[in-house]
Amino acid sequence: MSKKTINIGLFGFGVVGRGLSELLQRVPEADVRIAKVCVRNMARHQGEAPSLHFTTDPKEILDDPDIDLVVELIDDAEAAYHIVKGSLERCLPVVTGNKRMLAHHLPELIELQKEMKTALLYDASACGSIPVIRNLEEYYDNDLQISVKGILNGSSNFILSKIFNDHMSHADALRLARELGFLESDPTLDLDGWDSLFKLVILAVHAFGVYVEPERLFNFGITHMNDDDIRFANEKDRRIKLLGLAEKLPDNRLTLSVMPHLVSRNKYIYSCEDEFNGVVIKGRFYGKQFLVGRGAGGHPTSSAVLSDISAIRYDYFYRYKRMHSETPLPRFSNDISFRAYLRFTSDDDLQLLQPEAIYERYSSETHQYAVARINLQRLHDVRAELIERRMFIAAYPPD
Amino acid sequence: MSKKTINIGLFGFGVVGRGLSELLQRVPEADVRIAKVCVRNMARHQGEAPSLHFTTDPKEILDDPDIDLVVELIDDAEAAYHIVKGSLERCLPVVTGNKRMLAHHLPELIELQKEMKTALLYDASACGSIPVIRNLEEYYDNDLQISVKGILNGSSNFILSKIFNDHMSHADALRLARELGFLESDPTLDLDGWDSLFKLVILAVHAFGVYVEPERLFNFGITHMNDDDIRFANEKDRRIKLLGLAEKLPDNRLTLSVMPHLVSRNKYIYSCEDEFNGVVIKGRFYGKQFLVGRGAGGHPTSSAVLSDISAIRYDYFYRYKRMHSETPLPRFSNDISFRAYLRFTSDDDLQLLQPEAIYERYSSETHQYAVARINLQRLHDVRAELIERRMFIAAYPPD
Repeated sequence: MSKKTINIGLFGFGVVGRGLSELLQRVPEADVRIAKVCVRNMARHQGEAPSLHFTTDPKEILDDPDIDLVVELIDDAEAAYHIVKGSLERCLPVVTGNKRMLAHHLPELIELQKEMKTALLYDASACGSIPVIRNLEEYYDNDLQISVKGILNGSSNFILSKIFNDHMSHADALRLARELGFLESDPTLDLDGWDSLFKLVILAVHAFGVYVEPERLFNFGITHMNDDDIRFANEKDRRIKLLGLAEKLPDNRLTLSVMPHLVSRNKYIYSCEDEFNGVVIKGRFYGKQFLVGRGAGGHPTSSAVLSDISAIRYDYFYRYKRMHSETPLPRFSNDISFRAYLRFTSDDDLQLLQPEAIYERYSSETHQYAVARINLQRLHDVRAELIERRMFIAAYPPD
Repeated sequence: MSKKTINIGLFGFGVVGRGLSELLQRVPEADVRIAKVCVRNMARHQGEAPSLHFTTDPKEILDDPDIDLVVELIDDAEAAYHIVKGSLERCLPVVTGNKRMLAHHLPELIELQKEMKTALLYDASACGSIPVIRNLEEYYDNDLQISVKGILNGSSNFILSKIFNDHMSHADALRLARELGFLESDPTLDLDGWDSLFKLVILAVHAFGVYVEPERLFNFGITHMNDDDIRFANEKDRRIKLLGLAEKLPDNRLTLSVMPHLVSRNKYIYSCEDEFNGVVIKGRFYGKQFLVGRGAGGHPTSSAVLSDISAIRYDYFYRYKRMHSETPLPRFSNDISFRAYLRFTSDDDLQLLQPEAIYERYSSETHQYAVARINLQRLHDVRAELIERRMFIAAYPPD
C-alpha cells in the first residue's frame, strides 16, 4: 500500500475503538484517518466524537471505494465474522481484535485471505500489547517450538493478584475488578478461561501450525476457587495463575489446555501481576523467551491495532509458515497425565476424576483435597460435572 | 529474494558461527546453505567441519556471484566494518552481530544500505535471542517511546546473579564465569559496560531515531564492585544489576548511560538472572513491555542470526522510521542529576563528584559511602579518575 494517508473504516467504538481514535490524534506521523465508524447505536456515540462520521450500515464502509482498510473492534463474534469475511471478499485488508471469532473461523479466513491476496492481521487479539503472534510468525519461525505458556487474560490475573498480593478475599477482588471495568459484560468469559482458550487456539496456529476447534480443548477457570484453595497455595509458597498451555509431546503430539496452575516462586510467570499478560515461549535453539505487557485496556490494545495498520501499509501479512511446513504437523491430543491439586467434598467427586495415582490426601469436616495424577481427556469428558459439583482443579507441577 | 536455497558466505566460525551451522542442519526447511566460510586460520577449523568450504580470502566470498547473502560473525570490529561495507557496496545483503562495529559506524552504514538498496540486519547484535530491534522498528513504531532500560550483557549478569543469589564472592563468581567461557577474551568489555554501551547506542537509533557516538556516553561497570557494595545492596533489600538506560527527558532531550543500578524487588529486572538479558520498553500508549531471553551463547544468538537471514528472504529491511520522523529528534544530553550510591575512601573522592545533595553518609576505618545527588555529565568528565581511585557508583532510585 503506497498511499500516503490510510483511510480506515472502523467497526465498533468501545474502549479500544475510542483508544485508537485518541492514539491517532497523538501520532499524526502515522497518517491514518478514521473515515467512517459503524456502530449499532448512533445516538450513543455521536456526541462524544463530533468530528467522526458515524453510520449504522456496514455497507457504507464495505462498499466505499475510498476506504483502504477495515478495523473490526466489536464484541459480537458472529457480526465480526461477517464484517471480516465481507472485507476480504472485497479485497479490503482487515485488522481485527476479535479472538472468539478468530478461534472459531481461522481456517476459513486464512484460506480466504490467501485466495483474495488480502491481509488479515490480528496481533491485538492475543495478549493485547505483546507482539506474540508477530514474533512467532517472523522471529522464531525457524526454531523448533517446544511450548507456549502464559497468562493470557488480564482480568482474571488482576483478581488473582489482588488475592495473593493484597490478601483480598475472592469476593472483594471480584467486586474491585468489576468496579474498575476490568470484566467483560459476561464475566465468565474471563473467569472460566474462555477468553484464554480463544487466544490459545490462535497462538497454536502460529506456534505449531495446528488449528484445533475450541470445543476440543479443556478449559477451567477460577470461578469456584475458594479460600481453601488459596490457603493450600500459600502453604506451598505458590501462587495460583490461570494459564494457557500449548506443548509438544512425544510422538509429535500437541496438547492445549487452559486451567489454574500452582506456580512456584522461581518461575517468571509468578511475578506477572495485575492486568498484565505474560508469555513464556520455548524453542529448541533460542531457549526460553519471556514477554510481558499490558493485556487489557483501551490504549495498550489500540497501540497493537495501530501496529497492525502500519504493517499493512508496508504489505505485511502472516505467512502461516508452520501450517504449510513439509514436515508432518503435530496431532492434537488430550491424552496426557499430569500432577494436579483437586479440591472437592465427597469421595465420589474424586472417583469421578479417575486418578491414576494419589500422592497426598486431606479431608476435614468442610472439604477434602488430593494431590493426584489425572488425565486431561478425563477432565475434558467430565468438565460440566466438575463445575456442577463446584470442584476446583489446578495443575501442580513438582518444583 | 525469491530464490529457493539461500547460499550464504559466512565470516567467522566461533561459537555463533558453529551454532548457526548446527542450527541449519536441524532446520532444513529454512533452506539456507553455508556456501563458504572465511576464517583467519584455516588449519584450526577444517578438521571440525569437513563438509564446509573454508577460505582465508574475503574476496572469495564477496566476489562470488553464487553467494546471496553475507553473514558476518567475527570478533575484530575493524575487519567486520570492511566486510559489511564491502558487501553492501556489491549489493550483497548482510547480517551482522558485531555491536562494537555497528555502534561506531551505524550512520555511514545506514546511508550506504539506503543508497545501495541492500538490507543490513543485525538483530543478533543487541540482546541475543530477544527481538528488541525488530519490535522497536515494527511493532512499537507508532508509539511515543519514553524509555528503554535493561540488562544488555549476559556475562556480567551471570556474575551478579552468582553473587546475589548463590552468595559467591565477587572473585569466585568471576572465576566461574571464566571457566564456563562466558567472558570475552578481554573481560573488561563485559564487566566495564562497553558491550552494553555499544548495544545501547544501537537500540537508541531504533527507539528514538538518535545516533550518539559511543564516547559521548557515560559507562561504568562492576570491575571495582566489592563486598561493601554487595553488603549495602543486601541491607537495602536490593540487587545490583548492570543496566543500560535510554530515557526521554523534558525539553525533548535524551539521556543514555550504562552503570550499575540498585534494583528493588518489585522491578521485573530484579528477577532477570544468570546469562539472561531483560529489557523494559516504555511507551506512551502501550505502557510497559518486558522482554527476557538468553543474551549469550551460540545457539540463542545463531537463532537470532537465522531470523535475520529469513527476513532478508522476504525482503525485510529496517526502516529507521524514527530517524526520518518529521517531528524534531530529541537531543542527546548528559545534563541530568540522579540519586546514586557512591563508595570511596577519602573525602576528596566525594568532592571529585561534586554532589548536589547528600542524603546519607557513612564512614568507617576501611571505607566510606554516601547516597547523593550527582550529575551524569560530571561522572562522564571524571570517569578515568573514578576508575583510578577504584570508586564504585550505582544509581539508587527511591522506591
